[in-house]
Amino acid sequence: MTTLEATAIDQVRIDRIRNAVRGADDFDALVLASPVNTWYAAQVVIQTQEALPERLALLVWPRDGDPVYVVCNLEELQARAEAWIPDIRTYFEFKESPMQIVADVLRERGLTSARLGIETNFLTSAYADELRSLLPDAIYVRCQSFMAQLRSVKTEFELSLLANAASATDRAIRRTFESVRVGQTERAIAVRLQTALLEEGADTVSFVVLAAGRNSVQTHPVPGGYRVQSGDVLRTDFGGNFTGGYHSDIARTMVIGKASAEQERAYHALWDVHQQLIVLFRPGTRVCDIYERARALNLAAGLSFNRPHVGHSLGIELHEPPMITPYSTETLEPNMVFAIEPNHLVPGVEKYHLEDLVLVTTDGPRILSNATAWRDLLVRG
Amino acid sequence: MTTLEATAIDQVRIDRIRNAVRGADDFDALVLASPVNTWYAAQVVIQTQEALPERLALLVWPRDGDPVYVVCNLEELQARAEAWIPDIRTYFEFKESPMQIVADVLRERGLTSARLGIETNFLTSAYADELRSLLPDAIYVRCQSFMAQLRSVKTEFELSLLANAASATDRAIRRTFESVRVGQTERAIAVRLQTALLEEGADTVSFVVLAAGRNSVQTHPVPGGYRVQSGDVLRTDFGGNFTGGYHSDIARTMVIGKASAEQERAYHALWDVHQQLIVLFRPGTRVCDIYERARALNLAAGLSFNRPHVGHSLGIELHEPPMITPYSTETLEPNMVFAIEPNHLVPGVEKYHLEDLVLVTTDGPRILSNATAWRDLLVRG
Repeated sequence: MTTLEATAIDQVRIDRIRNAVRGADDFDALVLASPVNTWYAAQVVIQTQEALPERLALLVWPRDGDPVYVVCNLEELQARAEAWIPDIRTYFEFKESPMQIVADVLRERGLTSARLGIETNFLTSAYADELRSLLPDAIYVRCQSFMAQLRSVKTEFELSLLANAASATDRAIRRTFESVRVGQTERAIAVRLQTALLEEGADTVSFVVLAAGRNSVQTHPVPGGYRVQSGDVLRTDFGGNFTGGYHSDIARTMVIGKASAEQERAYHALWDVHQQLIVLFRPGTRVCDIYERARALNLAAGLSFNRPHVGHSLGIELHEPPMITPYSTETLEPNMVFAIEPNHLVPGVEKYHLEDLVLVTTDGPRILSNATAWRDLLVRG
Repeated sequence: MTTLEATAIDQVRIDRIRNAVRGADDFDALVLASPVNTWYAAQVVIQTQEALPERLALLVWPRDGDPVYVVCNLEELQARAEAWIPDIRTYFEFKESPMQIVADVLRERGLTSARLGIETNFLTSAYADELRSLLPDAIYVRCQSFMAQLRSVKTEFELSLLANAASATDRAIRRTFESVRVGQTERAIAVRLQTALLEEGADTVSFVVLAAGRNSVQTHPVPGGYRVQSGDVLRTDFGGNFTGGYHSDIARTMVIGKASAEQERAYHALWDVHQQLIVLFRPGTRVCDIYERARALNLAAGLSFNRPHVGHSLGIELHEPPMITPYSTETLEPNMVFAIEPNHLVPGVEKYHLEDLVLVTTDGPRILSNATAWRDLLVRG
């Protein structure tokens, strides 16, 4: 998104946030600072919010009024070009603290003794203490669950971005896996994978897990100099950042050269588990029941199970609530999306992993990531 | 770094941290949680510490004893394969909090009423409050300046990683800029730039600023669909993550097709400022004096000046202290490294930016990033 391109605005999202803020019981104003929530609300992706986390961009959203966007002066041109919010304030880094500007805005709005919703899971202890000392009469309450609940049900605009990101990522993996040959290094394969994702439209790559053979047993190995051999499992867990900051997150497993009967069996057993989990993504299912079902299915199929979660929602955040854990008592609603990711570890030998993006609709689950093309174990090289 | 590759350990770094911790006056144990400081101290790059910031990996380092490394159970195999620290504890995510394990370790070491050094500029308000409630008798002090000061003087091991990262990034930009042609989109050029960096050895791309013509006036624009035209300035500010988590950060400016006399003049004026700043990187120079000199030189040359900083140290952190601001009273020492980055904005028209990596040595500044190849304005297309 640059000054020369039209930037589409998701008006449904703006209205939904405004209504939720107006109806909130436990705060008088939101003070958002995380990339996830400020990108979501202001609809501007400021790169440095991730690269330089202390250079905050903040959104102050009073219950009875319009939001104010606070950015570092270096980011002012981008903010003015892209944000739908007209009231933008800046701070001059090192000379001024972003919290001073936030406190000024809150004083201006008569909110010095108000209840302020802050992200206690993002705001650093230092910034939180600074805000408390600037506005000692305010009451500070955590707002991350409020925001996460809002974000968990996607707008049509968001769904189109997420579906595009998921299918682009699936295509990038497919192209790369089809061209794998014995003797290539994990590193070289990972370079091609990342290039393919950028060519498919990602703004940046957000993470790359790619490992073969025995390396694949680690959860998040960095691709290295190992040369893939016939009979190796090759596993990737991979995603990018796309327009609007929306993530993809897809896992695939193939075998190099020639697959053993045991590898075929393990892959198809995991594939069957995956299918049986996908059908659960219907309105009304409790999230924790998907976790318990995943455990039961893996164990019944003779597959390993030792994971704290078997998937998660995603959007601008890579792992968004609800996480698919034993403790997630939320109930699925239409327009929620989930990455469902069963896996199977053969200790010390290899690991299998599948991950697809599933949309909850009133008509049942809709897969957004071309899963069916991976029914058969891919063998190349 | 994977299980199948030898992982070199920087013993000088370990000894330096150990000595500094032993000699510390204001804490009895460090509790580190940021990617920067845990990667630095444990010498393990756990990808998910950045992708999933709530999944903490922590290092507890008592003044009188050996450190303990606390990781999510999903990352245990990597931690055991790569860390030089034998005492590794794990937590099972969602069921246990990492802070519970940290509190257990501190109890075990008899440090429940000790002074604990925490990173108040990283640890979230929620995690800090949890630790305080688990160990209410401890005294909490900020340790980020202690760690930043340690990290600011690089070991030979670190310098070789940083020099490699800088020259790889310079080569990637050179290759990409040489092949730019009129009519290519910023986006397509940025894809080639990122691919080139991965081919030159980066593990991942950490950020990509690339913009042409009028788009270049923003500080951190995302490359978009604009097609570069003859007479456009093309500007990049770009870096990757390399082995050990070490960053690169290089900025370059070229002109597409044909440069005007005014563009030639502006580029060479900025180049001259750059050279005059680089010679200041000698032991004994005060950091803030470099900032003031940059302001004076830019203004004397008829160039704009409106920046909160003109550079920064870097290492595992992209912007490490000392930042080159008016408020940085530190004095340069041998084996400090800095990205020095003068720029010049023609409002509403275009922006020029140069950034090189300079090592402070007793013999004077040593440029680690091939700056001399950019003395003449590059014109291609």
